[in-house]
This record gives sequence, C-alpha cells and structure tokens, in this order.
Amino acid sequence: MPGPDPLLAESLGKIARDIDSMFDALLPNASDNRSVLGQAMRHAAIGGGKRLRPLLLTATAAMYGADRTHALRAAVAIEAVHVYSLVHDDLPCMDDDDLRHGKPTVHKAFGEAMAVLVGDALQAFAFELLADPATSGDPFVRAELVQVLATAAGGGGMVGGQVLDIMGEGQALSLPEITRLQQLKTGALLGAAVEMGAVLGKVPSEGRTHLRGYARDIGLAFQIADDLLDHEGDADKAGKALRKDAEAGKQTFVALLGPERAREQAQMLMDQAIAHLAAHGQEADVLRALAHYVVERDH
Amino acid sequence: MPGPDPLLAESLGKIARDIDSMFDALLPNASDNRSVLGQAMRHAAIGGGKRLRPLLLTATAAMYGADRTHALRAAVAIEAVHVYSLVHDDLPCMDDDDLRHGKPTVHKAFGEAMAVLVGDALQAFAFELLADPATSGDPFVRAELVQVLATAAGGGGMVGGQVLDIMGEGQALSLPEITRLQQLKTGALLGAAVEMGAVLGKVPSEGRTHLRGYARDIGLAFQIADDLLDHEGDADKAGKALRKDAEAGKQTFVALLGPERAREQAQMLMDQAIAHLAAHGQEADVLRALAHYVVERDH
Repeated sequence: MPGPDPLLAESLGKIARDIDSMFDALLPNASDNRSVLGQAMRHAAIGGGKRLRPLLLTATAAMYGADRTHALRAAVAIEAVHVYSLVHDDLPCMDDDDLRHGKPTVHKAFGEAMAVLVGDALQAFAFELLADPATSGDPFVRAELVQVLATAAGGGGMVGGQVLDIMGEGQALSLPEITRLQQLKTGALLGAAVEMGAVLGKVPSEGRTHLRGYARDIGLAFQIADDLLDHEGDADKAGKALRKDAEAGKQTFVALLGPERAREQAQMLMDQAIAHLAAHGQEADVLRALAHYVVERDH
Repeated sequence: MPGPDPLLAESLGKIARDIDSMFDALLPNASDNRSVLGQAMRHAAIGGGKRLRPLLLTATAAMYGADRTHALRAAVAIEAVHVYSLVHDDLPCMDDDDLRHGKPTVHKAFGEAMAVLVGDALQAFAFELLADPATSGDPFVRAELVQVLATAAGGGGMVGGQVLDIMGEGQALSLPEITRLQQLKTGALLGAAVEMGAVLGKVPSEGRTHLRGYARDIGLAFQIADDLLDHEGDADKAGKALRKDAEAGKQTFVALLGPERAREQAQMLMDQAIAHLAAHGQEADVLRALAHYVVERDH
C-alpha cells in the first residue's frame, strides 16, 4: 500500500512535532513527589500515535482561518482524551496490553495505580486546557469546545462505546450493532475533532452538517481499516500486539464481512467522505488526503 | 459529639435529596447494552455521601443571590468528580475497598473494567454538565466553572494529592508534607466548591480571597477530623472500613500530632474559617454551621 501523499506526509510530520512539544510544555512539571505523575503523563502522551485527531482538528480550523496556536491547544486537549483512553484500555482489568507505540504501557512502566491516575489527570488536563482563555479569547468558543469534547468522551460517546465493547465480548453482534459500537468508541472522538475545528473557525452549528458527514464516514472507514490491519498487519509496524480482538471473542468488521467486502466498504466510505467536501476548494485538500490515508495506511 | 444544628441539618437533608434526584435525572439512561453503565453510575453516585461539596457550592452561590437551579447543576458536576475519585480510589490496584457508603464498591458490584469506565464517564459528565448553557446563560461563567473544577481535579489538585499519597506510603512525611498532600487530595475540591459558588454569584476573583481562606481552613479541619474518626470511629456509621491508612503505612495528622493536639488543631482551623466570614451577616450562617459540622460530625 502507498504511503501518504506529500502534502499529508508534511502535515502529519508537522502536527506530530507540534503536539509533542506542546504536551511537553503544558503537562505538569512538579518538583516534589508528584514529579512521577508528570513523567508518566509524558511517557503516555509524547512520541507515539499518528495524531489523527489533532490533524483533523487543526486542518478543519485552518479551513476556516482560525488561529493555529488556538487550534493546537484544542488539539492537545482532544489528544489527551484519546491518550487517557488508551492508558485505561491497556490496564490488566481491560485489554491487558504490555506494549503501546512500541513502548511499555503506562501500568507496565509505572504500576497500575499510577496508570489509573495518569488517565484521570489527562482527562482533567484536557478540559483545563480548553477552558483557559489562552485557547480562545471568546468564552462562547471555550465553553462549546468543552461541551463538544465532554459529550464525545463520556457515556454517550467514547466510554459508551467501550461499554458496548465489553458487554459484546463473546456475543454475536450484528453489522448495525458493531457499527454503532465503533461509531461511539472511535467515531465520537474523530467527529469531535472536526467539530472542534469548526467551533474554533466560528462555523455555526447548522453549517457543520457536511463536516459531520465527513467525520462519520472516515471514522467508520478508519475502524474497518484498523480491523483489516489487525487481521493482516505487522505487529512491529503497529507497535502493539495484534489479533487480540479475535482472541477476546470480539466481533470485527472483517469477521462479519470477510476481508474483501470489508476493504470495499472502507473504499466506499472514503469516497463518500470526500464527496461531503465537494463545496470546498483546495483548502480542504488535507482532509481529502486524510480520508485516503485512514483507509490506505499500513499501520 | 452533637449533631449538626437545625439550620444545617435542614440544608444537608435538602441538598442530599436534590443531588440524588438530579443525578437520577441527568445520568445516562441508554436502553441498549450500555444500560449497565447508567446503572453503575447511579450505584456510585446516588444515595450516599454527605454532599459537603454540593452544600458548600450552593450555600456560597446563595450568599450572592445566584439561581439555585444553576448552582445545583454545578453542584452535581463537582460531586460527580468527587464520586469518580472514590470509585477509582476503591479499585484493587488503589485502596482495594469492598464497601463504600454501606454498599458494595462499584468494582465489587459491576467488575473492575466497569469501575474504571464509570469513573471516566463521571468525570466527562461533570464537564459536559458545566459547559451546557442550562448551567448558566453566561458563557464566561460556564468556561470559568470548567476551569476551576478541572484545575482542582487534575494533576495540580486532587489527582496530584493522590499521587503524593501513593508515593508517601511507608515514608515518614513531615507535618508540612502531609498538610500539602491533604490540601491537594481533599482541599482542592472543597476549595473549588466554594470558588464555583462565587463564580455563579459573579464575585470577581479579587473578591474571593476570604472565601478561599475559609475553604482552605475547613478543608484541613475536615481532613484532621477524618483522621480522628478513622482512629476512633465506628465502621458501621462510616459505612466503610476504618484504620486502613495506618495499616497501609500512610501517615495521618493523628499519627503525627497525637489525637489531643489534632483535635485542638481542627478546632483552631474551624475558628479561623469562621473568622474569614466576619464581613458577612446571616447569609453566611450555613457556611459557619458547616465549619462546625466538618469538625464535630461523628461519621
């Protein structure tokens, strides 16, 4: 499979560097016994991940001319929520993973209690960041950023999807059920990334319909591609153990559709996502390239 | 020890009923596989606890004429953060408690994975609630409520205190060290309750100094009283196991000062807390009664 196109490769590299340096600048740096918390939060947050949510957020914000520093702060916040969810997901009582982004998981490196607290602190950090006037001088924007992220992160979004995931283990889920599960578990936060970019760009809610459609389609395409990579991929490139879902008795798109139809479905969703951007010119090129990338990436 | 005075007893009863019914109305109520999340969140949040933070918040808001419905929503948010911290604190990898408010802890009743997710969802719920326009029509107020709560909840506040607590196990902490630990672990959230009441009452930051002094003093007094109850108290009344701190090798005020000096210190802090309210008339009577209560309560 091909790598990302040059525009996207540049955007992915830039956002990865920006997010790493902002995490390092913004995460707590206590000099007392709490220093281990800052270290463990940095271990979890810095130097790993594709930073898809930050790129979605900043690319959408840029389409509408929002300030990049503001967008980067919001991007750090949504990535902090994503990272906290991985830290808690990796816990022994959840997926019990030892490796994440090629490094020991937080509970392996710092112990389980610290991993619980790192996740909790990262979630609070996200909302602290969004509510800070440095993220936007407009309190309407700050409050709406918090509302969008909190709604997508909680029981009606990402955590709700994780609950469906746990409750569905060993059950024969239907295609609509697995679609709903994934729309909550990963789709909600990907959708929030685009929505938060639009909030920063002061796009009114009724002007975001096409962006929501785009986000919904790439969210599902992303998950199908993930299942395909889990089925066929390379654990070294992924930096984590693969085929754990099947072993845990979890239903996947590949198990339900077979790899061929799953791949067709992902392609179809990619085309559909790009079609939602038809009214935009080249300012939407990063989002278009991202739609290709989520389906065509090799890790 | 005497019970609370009649004014406070009424306020405590009223806030307990209001918080329970608002939790029930506002917590998620999905009809699919996620219904267990709503049940487990209600198990954790409803029908237990003294609701001190909600009472501090609503009593402070009332002093400045803020709308009670708005204050109650903010009070539910701060209590959700307190409850999530208890759910995670009780986990086997943290304090490993079986009983909370006389009921099985969340992980005993619903399993460890669900307890992690219940805590995570409660934290997101808190910020979703605060950012909602129904909590205040003024976006400045909403954003500041989020900022105050997130700062108090995260690595620079409550979670930071929990980290100090874990790192201090088996260490000989000094009185300043244990004071700092408790100021973060419980004081930060008690302080946020008062501060959020003042935010709703539109008291400018520079007009909150005396309230912060009051909150700092009752926070420390509360913790000393807790240590005394843990040392001398009745597990049936407390609804949880006692003397676990000493067993875990955790330093307490009672261990450092001895029970007699600890009690004197709590009384002194109570007097000092009340002195911070000297400029207020009877509108501050609930806060004064609360200062007595946190020191004189028997559970």
